[in-house]
Parts: sequence; structure tokens; C-alpha cells
Amino acid sequence: MNQQQLLSPMLSPQSIAIIGASGDVGKISYKPIANLKDVGYKGEVYLVNPKYEEIAGYRCYKDIESLPQSIDLALISVRASKVKNILDQLFKQKVKSVVTFSSGFTEIGEEGAILERELTKFSEQTGIPICGPNSLGLFNFKERAIVSFSSLKYGQYDPVAFITQSGALGTLTYTMAKENGLGFQYFVSSGNEASVDFFDYVQYFAEQEEIKVIGGYLEGARDFDKMDAAIEACHQSETPLVLLKVGNSKIGAEAASSHTASMAGNANIYHSYLKQSNVVRVGDEEELIDTLSVFNKTKKPKNNGGTVIVTQSGGAGIVIADQCEVRGISLAELSAHTKGKLKQTLPPFASIKNPVDITAQVNQNPNQVIHAVEILLNDNLVQSVILYLQMTDGPFLPMIPKLAQIAMETEKIFILCWAGIEQTTRDKIIDESSICWIPTPTRAADALANVLEYYRAINDSQTVKKRLTLNGHQLSPISGKKNEWESKQLLKKYGVDVPKALKINNLEELASIPLKFPLVMKALSSEIAHKSDYGLVKLKIKSLEEAEQAYREIFKNAEKSNLLHDIEGIIIEEMAPEGIEVIIGAVQDELFGPTIMFGLGGIFIEVLKDVTFLPAPFTEREALKMIQSIKSFSILDGARTKEKYDIKELANALVNISIFCNVHKDYIEELDINPLIVHKEGFGVTAVDAFIVGKK
Amino acid sequence: MNQQQLLSPMLSPQSIAIIGASGDVGKISYKPIANLKDVGYKGEVYLVNPKYEEIAGYRCYKDIESLPQSIDLALISVRASKVKNILDQLFKQKVKSVVTFSSGFTEIGEEGAILERELTKFSEQTGIPICGPNSLGLFNFKERAIVSFSSLKYGQYDPVAFITQSGALGTLTYTMAKENGLGFQYFVSSGNEASVDFFDYVQYFAEQEEIKVIGGYLEGARDFDKMDAAIEACHQSETPLVLLKVGNSKIGAEAASSHTASMAGNANIYHSYLKQSNVVRVGDEEELIDTLSVFNKTKKPKNNGGTVIVTQSGGAGIVIADQCEVRGISLAELSAHTKGKLKQTLPPFASIKNPVDITAQVNQNPNQVIHAVEILLNDNLVQSVILYLQMTDGPFLPMIPKLAQIAMETEKIFILCWAGIEQTTRDKIIDESSICWIPTPTRAADALANVLEYYRAINDSQTVKKRLTLNGHQLSPISGKKNEWESKQLLKKYGVDVPKALKINNLEELASIPLKFPLVMKALSSEIAHKSDYGLVKLKIKSLEEAEQAYREIFKNAEKSNLLHDIEGIIIEEMAPEGIEVIIGAVQDELFGPTIMFGLGGIFIEVLKDVTFLPAPFTEREALKMIQSIKSFSILDGARTKEKYDIKELANALVNISIFCNVHKDYIEELDINPLIVHKEGFGVTAVDAFIVGKK
Repeated sequence: MNQQQLLSPMLSPQSIAIIGASGDVGKISYKPIANLKDVGYKGEVYLVNPKYEEIAGYRCYKDIESLPQSIDLALISVRASKVKNILDQLFKQKVKSVVTFSSGFTEIGEEGAILERELTKFSEQTGIPICGPNSLGLFNFKERAIVSFSSLKYGQYDPVAFITQSGALGTLTYTMAKENGLGFQYFVSSGNEASVDFFDYVQYFAEQEEIKVIGGYLEGARDFDKMDAAIEACHQSETPLVLLKVGNSKIGAEAASSHTASMAGNANIYHSYLKQSNVVRVGDEEELIDTLSVFNKTKKPKNNGGTVIVTQSGGAGIVIADQCEVRGISLAELSAHTKGKLKQTLPPFASIKNPVDITAQVNQNPNQVIHAVEILLNDNLVQSVILYLQMTDGPFLPMIPKLAQIAMETEKIFILCWAGIEQTTRDKIIDESSICWIPTPTRAADALANVLEYYRAINDSQTVKKRLTLNGHQLSPISGKKNEWESKQLLKKYGVDVPKALKINNLEELASIPLKFPLVMKALSSEIAHKSDYGLVKLKIKSLEEAEQAYREIFKNAEKSNLLHDIEGIIIEEMAPEGIEVIIGAVQDELFGPTIMFGLGGIFIEVLKDVTFLPAPFTEREALKMIQSIKSFSILDGARTKEKYDIKELANALVNISIFCNVHKDYIEELDINPLIVHKEGFGVTAVDAFIVGKK
Repeated sequence: MNQQQLLSPMLSPQSIAIIGASGDVGKISYKPIANLKDVGYKGEVYLVNPKYEEIAGYRCYKDIESLPQSIDLALISVRASKVKNILDQLFKQKVKSVVTFSSGFTEIGEEGAILERELTKFSEQTGIPICGPNSLGLFNFKERAIVSFSSLKYGQYDPVAFITQSGALGTLTYTMAKENGLGFQYFVSSGNEASVDFFDYVQYFAEQEEIKVIGGYLEGARDFDKMDAAIEACHQSETPLVLLKVGNSKIGAEAASSHTASMAGNANIYHSYLKQSNVVRVGDEEELIDTLSVFNKTKKPKNNGGTVIVTQSGGAGIVIADQCEVRGISLAELSAHTKGKLKQTLPPFASIKNPVDITAQVNQNPNQVIHAVEILLNDNLVQSVILYLQMTDGPFLPMIPKLAQIAMETEKIFILCWAGIEQTTRDKIIDESSICWIPTPTRAADALANVLEYYRAINDSQTVKKRLTLNGHQLSPISGKKNEWESKQLLKKYGVDVPKALKINNLEELASIPLKFPLVMKALSSEIAHKSDYGLVKLKIKSLEEAEQAYREIFKNAEKSNLLHDIEGIIIEEMAPEGIEVIIGAVQDELFGPTIMFGLGGIFIEVLKDVTFLPAPFTEREALKMIQSIKSFSILDGARTKEKYDIKELANALVNISIFCNVHKDYIEELDINPLIVHKEGFGVTAVDAFIVGKK
């Protein structure tokens, strides 16, 4: 049974049983009954409590055994220790899914974790999906299935699904969204995720055709492959995924793990991965709501123009223009034709350039604003319009239906930023569900930027992301520390270019080495970390004599530092041509698995920490995006030398290293190629030093 | 007469005359009368309009001549062309200050600018300060002097002064602040600033003892010395200045100049200058209001501890902790003693570490929260507490007076972030004027960070900033382009170290040069930009023979490139020791005057644009702050080489260059020292290339 079939009874239940339903209106176990009743759930409701015949008009059964078979969803809100027993009874009744509010599981420590593992095992064995425990519940507003004890305000809803790992922040987001005219069709508080996790829900909603955008509050994913598949499903269906991902700070991550007992993961890897996967990342609840609103209430623009700001306040126009520049939104240059039409329409002192300052005079004739917006939305060079109005509740109130019509009909992005208004005006705007309303200028620019960045990335990549599948790669069991020679030999097998080199064991072998000068000679050792500090590396060797001298000096230096016993041989290799030094490393992350790190060498990595990460393995296209995502990319692109470096071969090396690391994920603990030299375009790359540590 | 005496009649008027007052309640010139009446202004009100005997109970005079003499403030709202004439009449009546709403001045173009210059001249000649034109007016709520046509909601006010260059954004901020429980005692819409400008008001408020914090919306300053003096006055009185400075983008700056006709100035110089002057810079209106709230409703903490987050939602705790880390707020480690007390107080499953997760169980016993906050505020290691509550309007409502008492009594910063509440709860919190309330978790962390950063900077600098005064420096009139030799000679006079060097005119002079090898030889030219590209620079000259060869080669190369006629001689100098290359430049900014730019050379300036600016002249302390403010400072501090570089001598060089540029501000158009080499600590600096362009 696939995800859709499994989760459908939970998220679109046709029948709901409430176990331990209470008839006492003061009790928390009465609330779900009241919620279903108040909202008018259309499906069947079965209550279980031997003390009642019926509650709120719903029939009450004396025990689970008496319930009809194959109910879609059962709701449990009993003490933690009793949940397992009830689950077993529900299984006998062929219940299809479960939601449990019960707390006292992993969030309270080991004692609760033992109970929670029983739930996980139950779900795995029976195939019955569980939402929770320690969940606020969920709802599907279209079906009027409110499976929650929360007293949220229900009403108009939009084709938006929302999943939260924090019940409290989830309900806060829900409430704030409602105040801004955005209703969630689905809301899921995923709780401790003993069975169904955050990205299971994402995957489900990505495949629901009617869902236009998915939002979420995420502390941490539990399974990389699931996360990756769900994000891939979002790509496939072109459903934007907007996440408030928290737990990025050290303390935040600690708190996150105490909170939902989920792995907060490595913040830097999350950052790189989500960015490269075109997941829209927001900074707070307001930005989350605003961004969901723009995705929901506007269409993907078909043209490629810029943004126009139409403003009643010069100041607000500047604030929006500033933020547009910060966020990389290009403002449209108005055509002479458009300017001419605006001049005819707007008051004499209006500023007919972008930002278009319509001045306070339009209060006398608000129709001028409507016309100006229409003129601009009809300009081919315009992709989006932000209209800023302020506190002019009186004169502009009658314009709301016209603005709603414009919003409904346009193929472009139209955002109304009407600030400082009365509650009644706000209510009128919200009633017109086609209007995308954002209350302040900076927030409007930020939300628009998020949406435009998403569409830009979508348009960039003709094909959707495909994870690399690996076949027939040779596996070399690796253990312990590998010296430079061994490490390079391993990389070479996977197509990573290393210098032409030989391992020699005595001075005599030097005479016949088939290598071209200049050469480099190094002591091989899996133990000595900074070989050049001890004089164990000799560069620019130009003749056989110099080579012999270098050989002797290396051994002399080793002796001096008492390191002779650590030397495993001598490597002599052709010196690589010049280029840009980069560092490629690999780490094993608990969530992401083998993950490749990339950055420029020297100060870029040491001082500026300008690095990026990507879980292995990946394709060339992803590697190119990875390379382009570092701040110092322009150096590889020739910003300093006016010559480009071989980015294509660098990408190729990254792909090969990612494959190598993935194939060997059970063997490699660490990998460090420092440096890999990227030569001028057409001249490839060379891994001049490498170091691999196998798992114990 | 000083600023205080001049502006006092305008900002604390005891008598107000309204010229052209209308009795027609529909007209805009009736509004100020209604405002004064409604709020109950205690001073004298005189109206001028021959058509009425009295309006709204105030006596109406037939003309200005009939008014009593020496009225504090006259309000003008007539057509632009008539303003000057009225001003002349007011001068005869010894009116002390003027506010004018009238538009049709600089904002409409040259025609209006001519009229505005008349106002400026009038004010300069008579000493009568004018607020406006094109202003929404101003108010002093303590005096109930509402000199504005705006229909703002008046009520409780706080010791906060607010100045805005945008009437619209100013009123929006006022309205949003009111909704968040913050009232402005003073509000000034500075309009076109024909006479009194933004920083005149800042200076006035900085000197008002009762004003605790000043906020403002700034598009651009008009006069650097005034701005600098006003910011200095804020330092002196320890009055934080919180600015939403806009016009940072290219388009924003253009719009800013069309809007209030003020110079938007150079965004990068503003950024560096405001940061180094400890002006609190905010990103949007919400952050402006929140930051003003924290400054206003809390005291400067006396201890040096960390921040504690107390939260009813684990998720919100993580969001706040994340933002604290981003903004550099250190979270307090709780002492065993405090932990013990919290354990006794809070419910069993509460998380007794920072963030302190009090769980939803406290809804049953909200007193536990009060106790927990008290325990934490009593801990010496705690400097500030953010309490996060959510939507628990019911159980926590009775706690509001207790929270207000805690807020009033504590010597620490206490912020209540109570999210998702009803309007009635919000009103109750706002009524308790001691509570600093912020509606969302990220906003709470941002506002706290702004305030803590301000106090940290205050504590850093024992003495307040003092502008350098210049005496007895030698002036060298400079014109045209100066070649390297001439430029270095000028810098040397000002104490900037340059290599020991000679200018030679023929090959024979080489034989007797008193310089130590290795040497550098360069062709001198004020015309040739990239000398080394043409082979006109020879490095590492180790002997007289090499020097002679270099000399010949330079001339040969010059001939080859047809540049002989541009060569003004040959400079030969001792090669400077190694070190870090930095660039020091100077620009002439229309607002800031001569301004020094500083950054590390190479990729840091070319690719990463990691530079900072400071108006000249400045002190060593300021130069050190400037050096420390660049992102790559850690390289000078030895991050790469583990050795420190001579930062003290670098600061000294910057000071000397700043003095040189200031003394020569009427002569220098551009200055570029690229590079100046900073040697190891104790070994000073060397300006190895320099280029000065004099003004035409």
C-alpha cells in the first residue's frame, strides 16, 4: 500500500471514533466532540465511553469491541501507559489510522521513550499509521474533520497544507494566518512522530492535486531519504514547500532535541541542502504566512519582467525599493508608452517612474489608482506589482471589490500592501479571497522575493532534480587511516585526477623514474599531520641531483624530529600546474549520511568559513549549483585573473568523490582533499593531497 | 541664541496662532483647530480669518497685524506662493517659530525650489525656525500641543521623541506603535526642512532630560557637522538614537531625492558611520517600534549576565534561541541554585535549562510562571528575561498586574512576548505601561539584541567620542594629478611611513645611491595607470648591475609602448618587508566631506567588497574601531599566520591620512594608497604606492 492509500483515511477520514470521549464540557476529552459538532463534520462519529449513551447527539459505545469495523480514524487521548492496549483493540476492529494527543512519551525521558518504541513497533507491524503521540491533532477543513482539542477559529480556507513539529507555534501560525486572510485546508501537528513523520505528510500533500503550497515548522527531519523523496515529490508537482526550519543555533538545537525528541541535524548541511533543493526557507512566522499568501493568492507569472512599486507614500516606496535591492528583485524600467498613459491618469505631481508615487492627492479620486495598476499590469515588461496604500480607509474602501477583480484576473503577481488600517477595512479585504494582502512594506518585499526566487530556480532547471543511482562501482573495504599514496590510489579509481606519481623505497629507484620535472617529493605517513612543518615535503625538484638530495634531507629531517618510525615510504610526483586551490571534504552526518563539503582554500575556508555541503551522491548539475553557491565563486569564474578556471572538471571531480563516498559510506569516516587545484579552463583539476580515515 | 532656546517655542509652545483657520469642519484647515480642542491644549490659541468672529470657541482675528505680539508658534497652511508674505507679517508680530503644512515647494521641481529658498533665507535672516514646508506638522503630547491636520489617535504617551522625513511612514509608525502600547511624547514631521532639519530636532531632544530614547525615519542628512554634533549630544546624554535609515538602494536613493528633496548620501558611508557612532539601525517599522519599546520600558542593566528565555512553547524557545545566536546575544547558564528553585516551582516535566520550557501545564497554575520569572531575575548571572506565552488569554489574564509589578521593580530587562492574543488581552497589557510587550518571538529577540548591542558599545568606550580638532598643520595647495614620488612626499610630511627612496634622472646617479638592497625601481608618471603591465616596475633588485639593467629595461619598455613622453623620472626605493597588504583611499562625499576608505587588498576589496568608511579627520580610537569593523579583521589579528600585525601603526597611519585629507579637503579630489603594507607587530607600516588627484 502506498503513502497516499495509507494516509488518506487519516487526513480525509469518512468516519471517526473517539476513544475515552467525555461528556463533561469542561474536560479536554470533550473538546474534539465539540469541534466536530460545531464545524459540522459530515462523516460518521463514534464515541467510546461506557458511562454515556450519547454525547452531543453522537452515539456512545461501551467499548472498542462494540464499534463497527474499519473505521477510518480513531482518536486516543488516554494516559501514555494505556495507549498500546487500546491500539491492540483498535487493530482487531480494523481501524485504518490513529491520532493520539497523549503525552508522557519520549518528551519526558527514557521511561516514555520505551512506551513510544512500542507505538512505532505497532505501526510497523500492523501498517496502521499513527499521528502523534503528544500531538495537538490534525484537521482537514474541506471535510470539516477537526480532530483536535484546540479551540481554533475555523472559517474560509485556502488550498494550503501546513505541518508543524511544535503544536504551540503551529497554532500561533494558524491564528496569525487567519488574521492575515489565509486559511489552511490541512493542519497537522505531527507530535513525537512515532510512526508518520513530517516528510511523510509533505509527500502526501505534494501528491494532492488541489494543494497549491505546503508550509511547515520544522525542527529536524528523521530520515534523509524520506525528506529527499518528499522534496522531489514537491518538485514533480511544482508545489512550493515553505519552511520555518529552526534549531540552527547550538542552544536551539539542544532545545529542539529535548522538545520533540527529533534530531536537529547539522544546521550548515540543512542550510546548503534546502537551498540547493529550492525549498523556500523563511526567518519567522510573519514571513512564513506572507510567503504562503503570495504563493496561494497569485499565479506563477508567465513573463520575465520586473517589479513595479505603486505607492501613496514616497517613504514606503523607498523602503520597498531598498528591500527589493537587498533581496535581488529587479525593478522594472517603465516604457515611454506606459509612462505616457500614467501621466494621463495620475495627479500632476505624481512621480511617473518606478517607484510610482501616486501622492496623497489620489484620495480625492481613488479610481486613478485602479487605472494606474491596470496600466502597469498590462505592460509586458512588468512581472509583479506591489500597491502600497496607507490608512486611507475612507476613500479607498469602495475600491476593494475592484482590486479583488484585478487580483483575480491578472496573470501576474499583484500584492496589496495596505498599512495602518482599521479592523473593519482589514475584514473587508480578507473577505475578498483573491487579494494577497500584506500589512507592511518590508514584509511585502520579502514575501515577493521568496516567491520570485523560487520561480527563478524552477525556470533555471529544465529537468527536475534526479538523485544519482549507483551501479557497478567497485567497493574497496577501507579501515584505519590511509596515507596519501593509498588515499590517492582510491580516488584515482573513481576518476579523480591525481598527479602522475611513484612510490619509491630506496635512493636507487630514483635514477629510472619515468616522471617529468619539476617534481615533488613527500614522506608517506598516515600518522604525521603537518608534514611540511617537519621538512618532509620537498617542492620544485628540477633534476635528478636535486631529487637525490631531497630524498636524503627528508630522512635526515625525519630522524631529527624522531619520526622515522612513522614513515611508510616516499612518494614522488609531477608538480601540478598552477591554479586555484579548493578543499573537498566528506563527513558522515547522522541524518544526511555521507556529505561532501566544498570551498576555496586558505582564508576562504579558515577565516571566512565560505563553504557549502551536499549529501552524496549527486549529479553534475547539482555539483555545478554547489560550486556556484559559495560566495567566492566569482574567483573561480575569473573575477581576479580575468581567466576562467575549469569548473566543469571541478564539478566532475565532486561528482566522482560523492560517488566514492556513497559507495564507501559504511567504510569511510572522514575524507579530506586539501588542496585540489583547479586549473585554467580546459586543463582539468589535480588532487595534490588527500587523506582518508576508515571507520573503526 | 542656542538650539534649545530657538526650538523650545516650536516644540513646547505656550501660544499658537493658526493663519487661515477655517470654520468649515470639512476643510483641512479646520482640522488643527479640532485637534487642539479635542485634546485640550492648555495654552493660548489665536485664529486668523476675517470671515469669522470665533471658531470652536477660539477668538478669530481679522489679520496678522491684529494678533498679540510674541506668539510662540504660528501655523501656516496657505498656497506656496503666499507663504513668504505671511512670514514677513509674522516677523513684524515677533512670532517665535513657524510650522507650515503648505506643499508646492522643492518636491514639485525648480519652480517650487525657488519659493523654498526664500523660506530658508527668511529663517537665516530673522532667526525664526520653520518646521516644513510640506510637513504634516508636529505635536508635543505632554503640552497637548497638536499642531497637525492628521487624525491620529491620542492617548497615553511615553518619554519617546520621534522625527520623520516621511509624513506617511511617520504616521504609520505612530499608529503601529500605539497598537503595541507605545505612545510618542513628541512627533515631528520635518517636511522639506527649509530651515530646521532632522538632526536639529535630534539635538534638541538629546538635550531634553525627560526624553529617554529618540526614534526616527531618515532618508538623508543635509549637513554632516550637524548630524555629527547631534549624535555626539545623544552620546553625552546617553539617549539612544534608533533610526530606520532608508534610501540604501540605487532606486531607493533616487526616489528619496525626489521625495523630500534631500540628499540620500552614500549608503556605504552612512552604514559605516552610523555603526561606528553607536546609532541603532533597524530594518523596518516593526523593529523600530519594538526597539524603542525596549529602550523605553526597561532600564539599562547594571550587571553583565546573559539572557534567559522562559517559554510555554518549546518551539518558540528554539526560535528565540536561534535568533539570539544570529544576533550575538549570549544565553545565561543557570546556576545550580536557580535550577533547584525552579524545580521546586515548576511542573514536573518542565525543562530546567535555558530556554526554560514551562510547558502548557502551567495554565493550571499561572502563579508558577510569575515565581519562575522572579527567581530568574534574582539570579546575578541573568541580565535579561524574555517570557514567551501564547494564546492563554484566560488563565493568564489575572497575572497581568503581577507581571507589570515585576517589570516596574526589576533593574534588568524584562520582555513579555505574548503571542496570538485577543484584542482585550492586548488592551489590558498595554494599559499596564510598565510592561514591554512584543508580539512575536523573532521580533522580541531582535529588539533585545539591538538594545544589548547599544549598551555593550556604550560600556566599551570609557570616554565618549570626540572629533579631532586640527591645529597648525601645514597646507600644500594641490592641483592636478600627482605622481607616485610627489604623492608619497606629501604623505610623508603627515607622518605616513613610505620606503626610503630617491628620484634619479640618469644612469650615473645610480652608482652612489645610499639605499640598501633589495631595491624597487619604477617609472614615475601621473598619467600611466598600470605601470607593471608595461614593464615599468622592477622588483627585487639585488645589485648595482641589476639596477643598471632595470633602468635600461624600463626605458626600453616605455619606448616599446610609446610611453616615453609620459615618464616624469625614475624612483628607486628600498623594498618594503613582507606583511599584509591593505588599501587606504579617500573620497569626497557631498554630505560627509573627505571620507577615508579602508580594507584589505586583493580579493577582499575586489571580490568581497569588504571595506569600511569614516569621515575625516578621526582619532586613533576611532581608527581602531574602523579597522576592527571589517569582516577580514581576523587576518590582521593573526588568524592565518598566528602572528599579529601592527594594528596600532596602521591606526596611526589612518589618523594621519585622515588629517591630511581634511586639511586638504579643498584641494584633494581622490587619494589612493594601494597597497600600504602592514608589517608584523612592532614593525610599522609602509605605503608602497600612492596616487593623489587634486581638484581642478
